[in-house]
Amino acid sequence: MPRITAVETHDVRFPTSAELAGSDAMHPDGDYSAAYLTLRTDHPDGHSGAGFTFTIGRGNDICVAAIEAMGATLVGLDLDEAFADMGAFARRFTHDSQFRWLGPEKGVVHLAAGALINAMWDLYARVEGKPLWKLLADLSPEQIVSLVDWRYLTDALTPDEALDMLRAKASGRAEREADLRATGFPAYTTSPGWLGYDDEKMIALATEAVAAGFTMIKLKVGGRIEDDIRRFALAREKLGDGIRLASDANQKWDVNEAIDWMTRLKPYDPYWIEEPTAPDDILGHAAIRKAVAPIKVATGEHAHNRILFKQLLQAGSLDVLQIDAARVAGVNENIAILLLAAKFGVPVCPHAGGVGLCELVQHLSMFDYIAVSGSKSDRAIESVPHLHEHFTDPISYGPSYTAPTAPGFSARMYPESLRDYAYPDGAIWQS
Amino acid sequence: MPRITAVETHDVRFPTSAELAGSDAMHPDGDYSAAYLTLRTDHPDGHSGAGFTFTIGRGNDICVAAIEAMGATLVGLDLDEAFADMGAFARRFTHDSQFRWLGPEKGVVHLAAGALINAMWDLYARVEGKPLWKLLADLSPEQIVSLVDWRYLTDALTPDEALDMLRAKASGRAEREADLRATGFPAYTTSPGWLGYDDEKMIALATEAVAAGFTMIKLKVGGRIEDDIRRFALAREKLGDGIRLASDANQKWDVNEAIDWMTRLKPYDPYWIEEPTAPDDILGHAAIRKAVAPIKVATGEHAHNRILFKQLLQAGSLDVLQIDAARVAGVNENIAILLLAAKFGVPVCPHAGGVGLCELVQHLSMFDYIAVSGSKSDRAIESVPHLHEHFTDPISYGPSYTAPTAPGFSARMYPESLRDYAYPDGAIWQS
Repeated sequence: MPRITAVETHDVRFPTSAELAGSDAMHPDGDYSAAYLTLRTDHPDGHSGAGFTFTIGRGNDICVAAIEAMGATLVGLDLDEAFADMGAFARRFTHDSQFRWLGPEKGVVHLAAGALINAMWDLYARVEGKPLWKLLADLSPEQIVSLVDWRYLTDALTPDEALDMLRAKASGRAEREADLRATGFPAYTTSPGWLGYDDEKMIALATEAVAAGFTMIKLKVGGRIEDDIRRFALAREKLGDGIRLASDANQKWDVNEAIDWMTRLKPYDPYWIEEPTAPDDILGHAAIRKAVAPIKVATGEHAHNRILFKQLLQAGSLDVLQIDAARVAGVNENIAILLLAAKFGVPVCPHAGGVGLCELVQHLSMFDYIAVSGSKSDRAIESVPHLHEHFTDPISYGPSYTAPTAPGFSARMYPESLRDYAYPDGAIWQS
Repeated sequence: MPRITAVETHDVRFPTSAELAGSDAMHPDGDYSAAYLTLRTDHPDGHSGAGFTFTIGRGNDICVAAIEAMGATLVGLDLDEAFADMGAFARRFTHDSQFRWLGPEKGVVHLAAGALINAMWDLYARVEGKPLWKLLADLSPEQIVSLVDWRYLTDALTPDEALDMLRAKASGRAEREADLRATGFPAYTTSPGWLGYDDEKMIALATEAVAAGFTMIKLKVGGRIEDDIRRFALAREKLGDGIRLASDANQKWDVNEAIDWMTRLKPYDPYWIEEPTAPDDILGHAAIRKAVAPIKVATGEHAHNRILFKQLLQAGSLDVLQIDAARVAGVNENIAILLLAAKFGVPVCPHAGGVGLCELVQHLSMFDYIAVSGSKSDRAIESVPHLHEHFTDPISYGPSYTAPTAPGFSARMYPESLRDYAYPDGAIWQS
């Protein structure tokens, strides 16, 4: 009976604000960070599980404190018992009768729950010797449904409906898995478009991306309208009409401001506007979507739980749903969100970048393709070429993500990275 | 130029779970707690400011960690400069470009922001020698509008509209202040209705409350429907038709479950159903409200920010809006919410109880009455007779709250309480 023996935590921060990579209209100076944990075990094969949540600097220590407080009860936990009911494992964090007061199911305690739940999935996949996407794709429809916390969802989707949806896709799984292994999953790139980059750097990186085969590029917007018009006009001119140019306002605008701004960018055919306003504003997104069509509305990276996603779908607030692997309560809640998206027929294009978000979220899109939506159409995972060198199983990508083959959730960082970027005592922060 | 010299924090917890006071359908075992802080200054008159957020036990330490992390930059702050622009003071927490990633504007960082902002208001009111309600009620419409963070609100309420609303109520302020000082502000009581109390205790306490003059009592629901029917039938029989009997499900149900459950309670004429489902579920509350009318829908104690309240009002999700003094970002955000409620013509009946929530929120209702809504009609503040003895300026109430006269926000706890209930080292927790 192998058990968890310790929950180790690390406050890891990268000084990315120095180069403006990651700069946007609301977050001009992020230091990409991870509140990282390792679940140690006495498994005879020496397995451990890694997980983290992503932040942009200050407050990473608060997430570490939350992971420690919420993870304290895991020492001594029987792994086999936990793996046999991962739905119950997730609910021990999200439904704790006292911790839930601090959310419920949002903010720091939810980020910490996600880190802990994802670490357990990493451990489970390592013990099973499978990459996470494959572990999930091998589950039966009944097993998948049992992972979801159905509380608050049944007015939009019931467990029985989900079961029917999953069964309907069961027969095609093998074929889609073979396709995934052969051709990967589509990617798009955000790296040319940070708000802190000048026109020359933006166009050079965008041209390079198109030459590498990318067909969709994302530009940050929301600083000054004149700058956005110039950047969009320039990108459209240099890249031609065949490239999808997405825009991302990172929550900058009020509802009417978003409508006015995007109306002025319409001549340059933005593919979507991402996070035009507050991530909580379901009705605001719906109003914007109606007003700026055919520009699509995309949101979700800051959507705090499945209840918000349910409503974004019910209200017709989005054309593109963006999950984030580390904001909601881990794999389990993201499966709920994938099922909701499939029910409403909305494509999922995950948020990634940050620290290790690409590594995590690829597994969820690949599972979605094989077992839930069954489609790659109009779907692509964000890709950003930063910080992958700190991970033991970095993504392999160009215009497509290659399906991971190593066991686990691709969440593990090198011990040297955890040491050197430790905040505030690591070598990088001391120098 | 007096300045802040230190931010002291305390993790204070009361072992309330032992007596089931505070027990409800989702929180059966709360240990009422406060993540408490004192702003120390070098003011010549020795002033300090107290603030806190309320939790129910586990996780209180996470809130303390957040208050410390977010409060660290306050040391050295010039008080006069801060008091001159309290809107900017509040935004330094809610718009911090890195901390906001952990919300934005929700969960632990928002609770901590609220504690810090409220502590500054306590300090400001003490320096001015006024109770907070009076400090606020003496502000001009322009000053009040300047306190609000208007980002994300303008599709529902603009600063100019708010100014017009406040000006329209300006001439009646003196009369309403005199009335408030003479007759106080209405209260209702929750103390008979905790889910852990048996029928005998519930009826004894309810009868006592009616004898004391209360005309509205709240009963927790959501355990077993048979129990709720029996308790409601019994309360209605013993108290008669003249007493408003509110019900509170504390987020227990899915949407359709809430509708079915309240339909079965309808014969006993519940005045409102509070938190029938997830606090984030705007569309769910709207559906429930439509289905269970004339039973009113009340919610808001767990509504995490002004953007959610805006939508609850836009979608017609509630009949009664329940602010909480310590969940959103302090006085400033609650003023935004009071203005929104007034715009939509919805009465505000604050959530209170917990630790010190009655002490805080009374000031906001009194300000609302004098300067914003101008009305006491269908308005009442929750009251619960617990833990007031730990506060230096406890509420004075029966069926009405008496307007506080002591300077400040009534937020200060006795040093002995901070010491004896300190977790985990205080005398109470060591014994």
